[in-house]
Amino acid sequence: MKKLKVGIVGASGYSGEELCTILARHPFVEISCVTSRQHAGKRLVDVLPRLAGRKDLASLTFINPDPEALKSEEAGIFFLALPHGQSAIYAKALLSAGKRVLDLSADFRLRDLARYKEFYQIDHPAPELLTEAVYGLPEIVREQIREARLVACPGCYPTSILLPLIPLLRQKKISPERIIASCLSGVSGAGRKTDVSLLYAECNESARAYGVPKHRHLSEIEQELEILTGAFYPLTFVPHLIPLTRGMIATLYVEPTGDFDADDALHIWSETFADEPFVRVSKNLPDAKHVTGTNYCDLSARFDDRTGRLLLFSALDNLTKGAAGQGVQNLNIIAGCDEEAGLLV
Amino acid sequence: MKKLKVGIVGASGYSGEELCTILARHPFVEISCVTSRQHAGKRLVDVLPRLAGRKDLASLTFINPDPEALKSEEAGIFFLALPHGQSAIYAKALLSAGKRVLDLSADFRLRDLARYKEFYQIDHPAPELLTEAVYGLPEIVREQIREARLVACPGCYPTSILLPLIPLLRQKKISPERIIASCLSGVSGAGRKTDVSLLYAECNESARAYGVPKHRHLSEIEQELEILTGAFYPLTFVPHLIPLTRGMIATLYVEPTGDFDADDALHIWSETFADEPFVRVSKNLPDAKHVTGTNYCDLSARFDDRTGRLLLFSALDNLTKGAAGQGVQNLNIIAGCDEEAGLLV
Amino acid sequence: MKKLKVGIVGASGYSGEELCTILARHPFVEISCVTSRQHAGKRLVDVLPRLAGRKDLASLTFINPDPEALKSEEAGIFFLALPHGQSAIYAKALLSAGKRVLDLSADFRLRDLARYKEFYQIDHPAPELLTEAVYGLPEIVREQIREARLVACPGCYPTSILLPLIPLLRQKKISPERIIASCLSGVSGAGRKTDVSLLYAECNESARAYGVPKHRHLSEIEQELEILTGAFYPLTFVPHLIPLTRGMIATLYVEPTGDFDADDALHIWSETFADEPFVRVSKNLPDAKHVTGTNYCDLSARFDDRTGRLLLFSALDNLTKGAAGQGVQNLNIIAGCDEEAGLLV
Amino acid sequence: MKKLKVGIVGASGYSGEELCTILARHPFVEISCVTSRQHAGKRLVDVLPRLAGRKDLASLTFINPDPEALKSEEAGIFFLALPHGQSAIYAKALLSAGKRVLDLSADFRLRDLARYKEFYQIDHPAPELLTEAVYGLPEIVREQIREARLVACPGCYPTSILLPLIPLLRQKKISPERIIASCLSGVSGAGRKTDVSLLYAECNESARAYGVPKHRHLSEIEQELEILTGAFYPLTFVPHLIPLTRGMIATLYVEPTGDFDADDALHIWSETFADEPFVRVSKNLPDAKHVTGTNYCDLSARFDDRTGRLLLFSALDNLTKGAAGQGVQNLNIIAGCDEEAGLLV
Repeated sequence: MKKLKVGIVGASGYSGEELCTILARHPFVEISCVTSRQHAGKRLVDVLPRLAGRKDLASLTFINPDPEALKSEEAGIFFLALPHGQSAIYAKALLSAGKRVLDLSADFRLRDLARYKEFYQIDHPAPELLTEAVYGLPEIVREQIREARLVACPGCYPTSILLPLIPLLRQKKISPERIIASCLSGVSGAGRKTDVSLLYAECNESARAYGVPKHRHLSEIEQELEILTGAFYPLTFVPHLIPLTRGMIATLYVEPTGDFDADDALHIWSETFADEPFVRVSKNLPDAKHVTGTNYCDLSARFDDRTGRLLLFSALDNLTKGAAGQGVQNLNIIAGCDEEAGLLV
Repeated sequence: MKKLKVGIVGASGYSGEELCTILARHPFVEISCVTSRQHAGKRLVDVLPRLAGRKDLASLTFINPDPEALKSEEAGIFFLALPHGQSAIYAKALLSAGKRVLDLSADFRLRDLARYKEFYQIDHPAPELLTEAVYGLPEIVREQIREARLVACPGCYPTSILLPLIPLLRQKKISPERIIASCLSGVSGAGRKTDVSLLYAECNESARAYGVPKHRHLSEIEQELEILTGAFYPLTFVPHLIPLTRGMIATLYVEPTGDFDADDALHIWSETFADEPFVRVSKNLPDAKHVTGTNYCDLSARFDDRTGRLLLFSALDNLTKGAAGQGVQNLNIIAGCDEEAGLLV
Repeated sequence: MKKLKVGIVGASGYSGEELCTILARHPFVEISCVTSRQHAGKRLVDVLPRLAGRKDLASLTFINPDPEALKSEEAGIFFLALPHGQSAIYAKALLSAGKRVLDLSADFRLRDLARYKEFYQIDHPAPELLTEAVYGLPEIVREQIREARLVACPGCYPTSILLPLIPLLRQKKISPERIIASCLSGVSGAGRKTDVSLLYAECNESARAYGVPKHRHLSEIEQELEILTGAFYPLTFVPHLIPLTRGMIATLYVEPTGDFDADDALHIWSETFADEPFVRVSKNLPDAKHVTGTNYCDLSARFDDRTGRLLLFSALDNLTKGAAGQGVQNLNIIAGCDEEAGLLV
Repeated sequence: MKKLKVGIVGASGYSGEELCTILARHPFVEISCVTSRQHAGKRLVDVLPRLAGRKDLASLTFINPDPEALKSEEAGIFFLALPHGQSAIYAKALLSAGKRVLDLSADFRLRDLARYKEFYQIDHPAPELLTEAVYGLPEIVREQIREARLVACPGCYPTSILLPLIPLLRQKKISPERIIASCLSGVSGAGRKTDVSLLYAECNESARAYGVPKHRHLSEIEQELEILTGAFYPLTFVPHLIPLTRGMIATLYVEPTGDFDADDALHIWSETFADEPFVRVSKNLPDAKHVTGTNYCDLSARFDDRTGRLLLFSALDNLTKGAAGQGVQNLNIIAGCDEEAGLLV
């Protein structure tokens, strides 16, 4: 199989670096272009020391991320690992040059301009592309991804919340009302940003809720639930920052619509995800360390018969299934190759 | 002021060590007796290296914890930092010898034998003492503690959950129904136990729910809410283990009974706890690192106007306000000295 | 290429689990047998949750590690991930049945019985095999490994110390006298052992030297330097335990024999290791996080012109290049396949 | 005893915050003035959440650090917790107004202008004060501190290295030649600086040497050894950054001048430091976690009879005995109060 040439815009942040790592081991992909404003002119293997020594990457040099210049790059598919607001500009240019785009930012996750503005406080830079973009959660919309020119890869929190919820909501086994998502995230989720609150001495031995009650990721979670159920059901979502480099835990509090317990949830998930390479269903409660560096999303459930609530648990790595890994999974779908390619470690 | 002589039974576990640390700096207390089955015969300053060099502790040697022998010890007040089931046996002996007892275990927290058996799976070793024991949450029952012979110090989770809940429930501002407590705990909460799941390499880069849906601490939380409201309202409680040595975060999802938001909650707490030395109310979300090693319980709140839920947040140190510090606070109440004595760091 | 069938004795410890992880992604290997005394009868994917969902491992069930029974296993090559003393017994049985053995323990690293007894305090269980065993540091003795029936994979500290030292000693650029190795190790190096000192709450926020001055790994380091130089030069070696799950840093203080500085060291290493897939030489000081989960050993150097000392730095992952990864590298050499197979992540 | 009024210039960095914490519990001190360029106008208890709720601090508001304005402050003694280069300017102004100054920066640690310029790359801002400044290591020069107007508090690494070395060098039991110091430091030592390399995700699971071979702290270590021995002996010093918030470990490799082993070293230290409240000598190797948050420096030793080297070990908390705690110890000496005041936790 001839290797697919791929570009990565914003390759020196945490998600960008993870993309480089995964694609470097991908049997069917060749990274042909990497950008980094900060490191333009330097060799990738000098900037990302974990990848030093990879012969196949030795020739890669960071270039400045110029939308126009990127149009003439050889790569036919581009990952965008940029902040929201910026991604849209690059997507627009690249699509106009016939490239396909896998965007890890939030720019194309929302279909509604008003919701985008409400949650991101800016006017959308490329509203005309919103209808075309596919919200790329492979386990839910694999077929649409296959043909998409523009895939908006879901956020880490939304992935950890939607994967357990959707199968149960679809079968109307749980109520879309009064759902609560209490989540824990590692610090890399905030990006390689020089912010005092992200310093080691601020995050170590620390645990804290943040972004309450209206974290930006809520917008895409509620959108997807609305698409599924046909009505708007607001969610209570409380993210917490804990001392992990990578990893995410979601604990969901939901109400069954009828006689439905944890085993039933496991059963529906097991059926729904039977052929999914990256969803693992288990009776054991998930642990972040079991998915670190992998593209898995682990699921489990418990029924609280004292309150009648169903408790759903998921774990994933925010940089893999929550970002770069899911992006590569989408790439594999588009490229028609083994969906696990590059993603088994 | 003549120093109060105090004994510590089980002084070499994490809570016991924390008791030694606090009492070593306590201006009005002298530790006169420390027990440790494992370290009997060794000097305290040799077993607990953090306390090496403390001249006032230099003469203390661990003795074997024999209930009968302890009766003739000079100390008039004893802390019990033992596993449940064992504590009761020591309490019984010590009380019969006219000593007062501050128990950090669960043995005297529940008033109902059936509830004890349901949650702890053993018959209570000293049922006759249950009616007498005071559930020692100073902010709630200070006056009863003052005269108590036997104080059952609350668990760490219950403290972090009851302190924010009680003032709001008492004023009927929130419903006792459908309360959810999603909590995070550091690893010292599990004690100095040689269990594979508590190894560094198992807890680092790990985050996991456990003890769902019926963690033992639920029993005392529900009991206290029942005492307060006059009816039984089961709670959904999900504890998570995260990579902290010390620290605990509680995020509570509750429903206001009427027009009541976060500012109102802050207001009620501020009034209720106006004279409390160890409860801090703030608009800022609490962070475990701000209470590590202190006896504070930090509180904050947010109103989620999208779902009508009120979110309550607390943070404390599981070994201090969640165990030894609260024990010493109770001691200070009993001794009639400044409640902050030994507890300001 | 037909897949090579491989057995892993002691597959549920940290090194054993890492072997499973690496071999599960190895293109030319099939794990056909895994043992675990503790987990006999359970499926591997149930015991090692990181590997759950791997279809190719789904049929593997842990068996009891019985030396005689293992002789009739189909696998032609066995990894031993056992404590020293036990490994030798299995090696003896397996070799007698015509199997080849890659031992991760210390049992066959030393050629001298007296040295073994001095450092390990037991009589060697299979002295007749010592002469045959190859000390499997691929970068040094690749050709001998190729034909070996019994490979003793070096310890983690020795690998991190010998790789930088040997090329410089071989060319007599540094003196074998007065060498000091100051090393840092993550906690997984101590194994999945229920020891109080390895608990999370004991290792977090902790850093401590241990095993001074005669850590067991010193024996093999000195042996290899003796083989190289023809004389015995004792080394000062101080290992420290620091709060990492995985990772190892060696800082070596050596004395050049003549006019020889850091650039010269980098030059010799670059030449010596030019074709080595797993040694990376850089002007930048190595960092444990850049090698975590990889089979790389990173090297750098600084000349301290104020004291005339040369400072050598290395980093590796104690479970990969320091144990399981090096074992698989040796397997690849024996199997004649790409030495990087299974080892690029 | 009337409370001593003290000012803290630079009170919102890690050392400044630690000063606030210690002085807040100090029985004989009142913080009367705190500066912070960034937080001027805000209340201290709002900026430093660990100190929220301290009634005695409730009235403190950060002011802008203006040297002239500070001259008219009521406080008679000032701590400077500022970067080098800046401290000298404040010291000059404050001394001219008759205040006494305890400087935590490097500005007054070196007596020689050329050495200052060599290591700090700037011309000294107040050279006329150098002769007057006392290098404030209480265990070595207590009497000079008592009368000093300007105390230069030693750096964290120098404290951890000089305390074990000086008694042995003074008695000529070890050679001042060929000393090696291999040190480990927690991340708070780098200050509350927004530097990518200090982010949680960069420091967690990381360990790395840095600042080799000429870390700035080398200058004061060598100066002090020169003062002691009368000759210049360069030292090899390799600091490493490890994933601790607080804590420092020094491992020193030295050569005895004669028949002198670890017990002899312990004996000399025990004698030298017999009356020192903050030096603890033990047969057990020190551990960072035993000194976290304390002002102790723990010492131990091992003799490596195989190489004839003596290994010295020390541990301290870089923010306490390595900075703020030592500063307060110096304050206590100057104030003539109990040297442990405020420093026992």
